Amino acid sequence: MTAPLTPTRTVGPGSDLAEVFELAQQLRVDSVRASTSAGSGHPTSGLSAADLMAVLMTRHLRYAWDDPGNPAADHLVFSKGHASPLLYAMFKAAGAIGDDELMTTYRRHGHRLQGHPTPELPWVDVATGSLGQGVGYGVGIALATRDLRKSPARVWVLCGDGETTEGSVWEALDAAGRHRLANFVALIDVNRLGQRGPTALEWDTETYARRAEAFGCRAIRVDGHDLAAVDRALTTAADGLAPTVVIARTVKGRGVSEVADKNGWHGKPLPEDMAERTIAELGGLRDLRVSGPAPPDAPTRPVRPAGPGGRPGTVRLPRYEPGESVATRAAFGAALAALGARTEIVALDAEVGNSTHTEEFGEEHPDRYVQAYIAEQQMIADAVGMAVCGYHPFATTFAAFLTRAHDFLRMAAVSRITMAVCGTHSGVEIGADGPSQMGVEDLAMMRAVLGSTVLYPSDATSAAALTAAMADLDGISYLRTTRGAYPVLYGHGETFPVGGSKTLRRTDDDRVTLVGAGVTLHECLAAADALAAEGMSARVLDLYSVKPVDGGTLLRAARETGALVVAEDHHPEGGIGEAVLSALVGKGVCPAFAHLAVTGLPDSGTTGELLDAAGVSRTHIARAARRLASGNGPTPRSTQASPTEQGDES
Amino acid sequence: MTAPLTPTRTVGPGSDLAEVFELAQQLRVDSVRASTSAGSGHPTSGLSAADLMAVLMTRHLRYAWDDPGNPAADHLVFSKGHASPLLYAMFKAAGAIGDDELMTTYRRHGHRLQGHPTPELPWVDVATGSLGQGVGYGVGIALATRDLRKSPARVWVLCGDGETTEGSVWEALDAAGRHRLANFVALIDVNRLGQRGPTALEWDTETYARRAEAFGCRAIRVDGHDLAAVDRALTTAADGLAPTVVIARTVKGRGVSEVADKNGWHGKPLPEDMAERTIAELGGLRDLRVSGPAPPDAPTRPVRPAGPGGRPGTVRLPRYEPGESVATRAAFGAALAALGARTEIVALDAEVGNSTHTEEFGEEHPDRYVQAYIAEQQMIADAVGMAVCGYHPFATTFAAFLTRAHDFLRMAAVSRITMAVCGTHSGVEIGADGPSQMGVEDLAMMRAVLGSTVLYPSDATSAAALTAAMADLDGISYLRTTRGAYPVLYGHGETFPVGGSKTLRRTDDDRVTLVGAGVTLHECLAAADALAAEGMSARVLDLYSVKPVDGGTLLRAARETGALVVAEDHHPEGGIGEAVLSALVGKGVCPAFAHLAVTGLPDSGTTGELLDAAGVSRTHIARAARRLASGNGPTPRSTQASPTEQGDES
Repeated sequence: MTAPLTPTRTVGPGSDLAEVFELAQQLRVDSVRASTSAGSGHPTSGLSAADLMAVLMTRHLRYAWDDPGNPAADHLVFSKGHASPLLYAMFKAAGAIGDDELMTTYRRHGHRLQGHPTPELPWVDVATGSLGQGVGYGVGIALATRDLRKSPARVWVLCGDGETTEGSVWEALDAAGRHRLANFVALIDVNRLGQRGPTALEWDTETYARRAEAFGCRAIRVDGHDLAAVDRALTTAADGLAPTVVIARTVKGRGVSEVADKNGWHGKPLPEDMAERTIAELGGLRDLRVSGPAPPDAPTRPVRPAGPGGRPGTVRLPRYEPGESVATRAAFGAALAALGARTEIVALDAEVGNSTHTEEFGEEHPDRYVQAYIAEQQMIADAVGMAVCGYHPFATTFAAFLTRAHDFLRMAAVSRITMAVCGTHSGVEIGADGPSQMGVEDLAMMRAVLGSTVLYPSDATSAAALTAAMADLDGISYLRTTRGAYPVLYGHGETFPVGGSKTLRRTDDDRVTLVGAGVTLHECLAAADALAAEGMSARVLDLYSVKPVDGGTLLRAARETGALVVAEDHHPEGGIGEAVLSALVGKGVCPAFAHLAVTGLPDSGTTGELLDAAGVSRTHIARAARRLASGNGPTPRSTQASPTEQGDES
Repeated sequence: MTAPLTPTRTVGPGSDLAEVFELAQQLRVDSVRASTSAGSGHPTSGLSAADLMAVLMTRHLRYAWDDPGNPAADHLVFSKGHASPLLYAMFKAAGAIGDDELMTTYRRHGHRLQGHPTPELPWVDVATGSLGQGVGYGVGIALATRDLRKSPARVWVLCGDGETTEGSVWEALDAAGRHRLANFVALIDVNRLGQRGPTALEWDTETYARRAEAFGCRAIRVDGHDLAAVDRALTTAADGLAPTVVIARTVKGRGVSEVADKNGWHGKPLPEDMAERTIAELGGLRDLRVSGPAPPDAPTRPVRPAGPGGRPGTVRLPRYEPGESVATRAAFGAALAALGARTEIVALDAEVGNSTHTEEFGEEHPDRYVQAYIAEQQMIADAVGMAVCGYHPFATTFAAFLTRAHDFLRMAAVSRITMAVCGTHSGVEIGADGPSQMGVEDLAMMRAVLGSTVLYPSDATSAAALTAAMADLDGISYLRTTRGAYPVLYGHGETFPVGGSKTLRRTDDDRVTLVGAGVTLHECLAAADALAAEGMSARVLDLYSVKPVDGGTLLRAARETGALVVAEDHHPEGGIGEAVLSALVGKGVCPAFAHLAVTGLPDSGTTGELLDAAGVSRTHIARAARRLASGNGPTPRSTQASPTEQGDES
């Protein structure tokens, strides 16, 4: 396990396959060394793919290791992110990292060679490790590369065999086939063994091939340890004629007789003594340096540069007159179409563009509009690919169906991706379609996404403004919109800073504050009118920014009125109510508080009926306000009953 | 649109196809009438499938409409749930509902004929409407029916063509093929038109067939309006030889010349005058009654009846000695294996059973153990199918990867399914594997699931007890477990009622309460020890029940100590901290409060390093406690910064 001693030799496109094999052995040795030194990791999953990667990086991967952002350069996505020791061994072979970094920092805290690859490494586009995602990201990058960047770059994805049971892989290959992404190659490392035993298809490479072909891709079956055959396969794959899936029959633990094709060695580093024997069996240490093919010197279409010239000043947002009835989803769609004036903006639909109003963007900017069909995971994967290539994607579907892509959204945050997501048809407000179509969990999901921004406009003016704001937000931003049309509340001069709120009713005598967003804001306004008619002043806050939330204004309202009613068209957990509580706690206020939220299973009905049945309508808001203001006891409907109250249910 | 006048005739297996066609036309007429009377709904999506369903229900669906729970009876899942008018027209034709209910309650509030079918109707097994799920549910039901119930029942799924772009459909067909589910039939209604335009494959039924075959199913292509051909196809499909996908080329809006095969009519009821013309074109009103094939009079294996005889008394839970080091995931696995003594318990794995310890159940009860491979959506769909058949499933994978199945979990709640879900490897605690494997959003996700129970044990004794408790909980219950081994805190006499908590440290002089669960409880205990050494008493609460939460004990602790530190290995949104705030608000207490949670992007490292870097370790807990107890200002780390503080980020 000592450092390499042999002098450096260079391996490249001109090297013969014997030299490429030496490189493959070096990648194996370094995979073993790195994981053994770290005391954890997946060496055997790298050993199976080392030959594939050695051929790829010497002869096919057109990459500039010192210029990883080169838009003409190929991309490599390690969908089997647990094979990170192999990837990092490749980085070392390319001279991108040193042996010291590999041997002393892998999987250690505060270092970039993490257990699974993340874009903290400049040669990694996307974080992987949640299996089944890399193929989708590769498709997204290939789309952005070919259709937006107009780049000759190709995308290579190394995919495990076990992860092909994830449906997302087939969403991705379906998209690859449909878009005829001839710049896309997936290499499936069919090493037959998963984490706990044989994979479902073991070495049935014929079935893999039939599936890939049925989904519109060219399939090439190959012995993944026959370097000449692999080289021929990759040559064909890179011919630019069709999206290709290379199905490589391999042996897990290949080259190491003590573990090769043996169950029980998944995710286990070799013990020190075994590693020593293994390295000897693999031919000992080498110090080969790869100098693979360079990216073509080809023009690519630049992404519109960020900066004053590209700012929303040049975008003509739609304007709405106060009082006019407009759905926030419609205002979102119109604003998105207007934002299309910025050429870095792209829009993605999951076959509901006529409901979400993204269709308007598609009509005006068809070259930057991606139809993902009913495949929310791939829609988000496409968006990630666009973001990797410098574009600013807006991905939209019903709020309820975004839950389908939760894992992709979570991983996009780990990748530090910037994208805007819009969920339409939120809450019971949608009416007759019933609970399957009602997004009543989306705020909890999107608030919990790392570094996210969560916005929830109540009228068309703020919806348009916040849509535009999302085009300049970093990270994952979410806009929640509503199906029905409601009165425009704000004139077009109004601004809506992220983290702010609007106070729509306010007197010096306010005895309660009503907090709403989206449809419940309109219910709060109606409740305030009803209360005013009874002689009771209520403050009304439009909490259009749910994360970050306007703690200052909430605190002032709590102090000045002493009572808060929060009404939200969402389950009580993780939504607006809890965001408000988090903002107020520890600030020395202790207001009376009522949290109205959707606690039961909604059914079909009119919006009014369903808001009322859920207990979030104007009637319930006014009732809660009266109760709080009269100082009559505790919270009328809290998000969690005490154990005693819930005794029957548990 | 008046009520039917013609006298009732019966259509059944002996009827000729002309009569079956009359039934199909009646189903069409009623689909149109129901949706027009409701003013919303999807008539055209039903018109395409009416012939398929007419043949199915008269000649192939072995069903007892007056005994929908009959375990020998076939199942019918409407994956294209938006075609509910067709389904309800079938219910009417079967005599299960009356014309009056169809015409006056469809999509109305407070009634059971909702916009998309839910099990509020006794003939509906699972709620649909989130496309791409029905095939998976059908597979799960077919598995449970064949392998657990030992029933001759068959499962028929009506699936839209547009929804086959969902990867979950291919997870499901992969499972159907792998399990050789010869009792499973999916009918794909290839009507060529989606919501906003043509589907990706339009009428390319050959590609559908190739895909189905590549995934191990028999494919039968048929003209979906040729009743004789459909009848032959369904006869073959029901021959019990192979899982079958019938690919039916159909016309959306079939039978209605004004809308047939026309884009722009998705999800739109026909206007009154058009409906009148349409009904005339379809041959007017009929009143046919279907008397289809009866279920075979076959024995099925009964699910172990609930009741005293089947209660955990007969289950020998594992016992642990206080002080012993055991991972909660290991205790969960051992308890689950023990629960296998109850024959209604089944366990499901997504190819990580050796990490989650579900493998132990599989070894002891292989006949009730389902290996779903790396396909979390199908794992949950399988679990739903088991629950539909009366079993109590435990579905387990890493907490992080449960996000993949969020939409299935959401819909399972709409279906009022009872199932237990366990997420292992929660939080940054897992260490070197890095953020892709860390569940730090799962509490937010699972708390927001309708009617869920969320449990989070800190030691092996409570983990085993809560695992057992889940076997008797209704609805969706979630157990969050931890990767590492920690000291056993409780002796085996201890009980852990759902909605309770444990107070592990308590004196009359407590100046702060430390609230933790899982790994952070151990950090709280260490912090309390450190504080005690400094002369400061801290109360320590084990909040093993996150939903429902023990509001009473929290309230008392807040009152008595005046300060709370909540530490959780989860993002700050939607987790333990906000559950605590929701429990305390409006109760007249206003404690000093510190919320320690994972706010940044973790990396690899040791557990100690990562807890510390995330700010949730003993050091940070003790520091926060000192600060609160000294009355020194507000919350040191709130979940939401004020807008001013976050100005740079937005």
